[in-house]
Amino acid sequence: MVTVAIDVMGSDLGVSELIKGITALSMEADNQIQMVLVGDAKEIAKALVGQVYHPKFIEIVHASQHITQDEKAKEALKTNQDLSIVRACQLVKEGRADALVSAGNTGGVILSAAQSFDRIAGVQRVALAAVLPTEKRRGQRQDPFALLLDVGATLHVTAEDLYRFALMGSIYASIVSKNTSPSVALLSNGTEIGKGPSEVVEAFQLLSENTDGLSFIGNVEGLDIPRGGADVIVCEGFLGNVVLKLLEGITELAADLAKEAYDSKLIWRLGLTMLSKELRKLRRLTDWKQYGGAPILGFDKVVIKAHGRSNARAIRNAIKLAAKVHRGDLISKIQQKMEPRCSPTV
Amino acid sequence: MVTVAIDVMGSDLGVSELIKGITALSMEADNQIQMVLVGDAKEIAKALVGQVYHPKFIEIVHASQHITQDEKAKEALKTNQDLSIVRACQLVKEGRADALVSAGNTGGVILSAAQSFDRIAGVQRVALAAVLPTEKRRGQRQDPFALLLDVGATLHVTAEDLYRFALMGSIYASIVSKNTSPSVALLSNGTEIGKGPSEVVEAFQLLSENTDGLSFIGNVEGLDIPRGGADVIVCEGFLGNVVLKLLEGITELAADLAKEAYDSKLIWRLGLTMLSKELRKLRRLTDWKQYGGAPILGFDKVVIKAHGRSNARAIRNAIKLAAKVHRGDLISKIQQKMEPRCSPTV
Repeated sequence: MVTVAIDVMGSDLGVSELIKGITALSMEADNQIQMVLVGDAKEIAKALVGQVYHPKFIEIVHASQHITQDEKAKEALKTNQDLSIVRACQLVKEGRADALVSAGNTGGVILSAAQSFDRIAGVQRVALAAVLPTEKRRGQRQDPFALLLDVGATLHVTAEDLYRFALMGSIYASIVSKNTSPSVALLSNGTEIGKGPSEVVEAFQLLSENTDGLSFIGNVEGLDIPRGGADVIVCEGFLGNVVLKLLEGITELAADLAKEAYDSKLIWRLGLTMLSKELRKLRRLTDWKQYGGAPILGFDKVVIKAHGRSNARAIRNAIKLAAKVHRGDLISKIQQKMEPRCSPTV
Repeated sequence: MVTVAIDVMGSDLGVSELIKGITALSMEADNQIQMVLVGDAKEIAKALVGQVYHPKFIEIVHASQHITQDEKAKEALKTNQDLSIVRACQLVKEGRADALVSAGNTGGVILSAAQSFDRIAGVQRVALAAVLPTEKRRGQRQDPFALLLDVGATLHVTAEDLYRFALMGSIYASIVSKNTSPSVALLSNGTEIGKGPSEVVEAFQLLSENTDGLSFIGNVEGLDIPRGGADVIVCEGFLGNVVLKLLEGITELAADLAKEAYDSKLIWRLGLTMLSKELRKLRRLTDWKQYGGAPILGFDKVVIKAHGRSNARAIRNAIKLAAKVHRGDLISKIQQKMEPRCSPTV
């Protein structure tokens, strides 16, 4: 049995949507996941009314306050005493839960985790990852996504940070996609060695010479991201964040255009219907909900950040992901690889 | 009459495709553009055979060598004596042409220009711009694009560089789109002041306090790019290059999927035909050919980089663009704004 602490507050679709996913998961006979829901107990109890669930797998821990999506996390953490994300982190810190899941304010999750957890020895900066849908399928599980990190926990980074992001991302991908040797690439402005700012050039060197078993395939460019050129793509957080939001923006724009077409003319609606199978393919390529969430890597605890707009299916997948990552021994596998790198010679 | 030197070598579609656009432009009665074609005279003469053109507007200057798209520009410039791009730059330097257009190797254009031209006083780093199609239309001309710079002439930059990119981009946009006050934004990982690495935070401050008449609207995020959130978007070259190539990659992927659908099933072909008007809209949104090219800003000469895959229409538009930018007095307008910023107090 794995115990997952879930901050159920502060997501875009609200507590009741998350509770739908949580209750559904509690009814899956083989799930073997104990869920501790952290948040406003009254709201949670209200959302549970009318849902079918297995009470054995659901526990509630009350927290009177939470950080909203629009709030500045730093200030919220300073001024509020009883925040759901802080309480959820404490449960994990105290060993009452094995992993943390939150669909709340991203800054809030990173800062609360930084307050509660230690960084794994040798890790200077933690990284927030994102799963990017790609057409290519990966690993034993045939997962149709690549991992991009960092997408916002850092701004500029050093070559050593990039190396550690590659290492952590590779270990994570090998657990999640059952891919024994995920391909790792640096995001740069050209594929050749020597392309990019000095930290990228230096990281290229470090990765080329790595003895950690990383399958480094070199640099990829922006156009390789949608093509699925690598299983794990590594970059600084400032760059990764712009890339991620750009991809989200394009997905939304395409959906808007399709909706406009569907709503405005019968012939367009017919055309879209005829194309539905091909469009489903496209939709699957932009459907982050199937992946549930992405990890924050570098803490000594498993932290899965679910998307702010998570629906029932997305949060269920995020919780299952957290349990899987814990069972796959993510933290100790990272610790083992980081340890030799902590010596002052590196 | 404006004289434009055109490096006709080294583009993806070859000399003959460019010559089609050039000859067509020579037949436009009101074009008032003298074109000096620089490249292999034999190849040019061969490509002219069978084309209808006005010989008065076309002149040929022979250069025996050129840089290919795949070549490393730095090495090519070192080892080759008689390169078309170098010769074209010299024509502009010597005043025999007013502006330069090339669809060749981007690094080759930037490095040759750097060898031949001076940077405008006060400019520390030149910037390569790109035009991004947007749904929103801009300026008196109702142009459907935004300008993004830098997309690859630099890697990391300073706050002052970002400020100068904003200034040069704004002046360029005001000439090209006849937009008296283009909106200018910084690309960052959040819209609030204080978001981003220190150089972006500092540039935000400089732009907010600007007395150069810049309409600074703050930061935009990745998702604002396809939405067309600003007329001029400013960032470092490393970030801009990844963004640009990502956008190109997505455009290609969408085209591939559409082609696959069209080719594989009659019902999908029917569906696409029914949607053709809506798809045209989407295609216009991703059609860089209508814009011809984008400037390299910061040199004391007008330099327009046309896309490597330029067809006849694209190169014709790039040449017209170069003439328009020269007529619009881009260089002296930038010089006027930069001059007060050259004092040691800035």
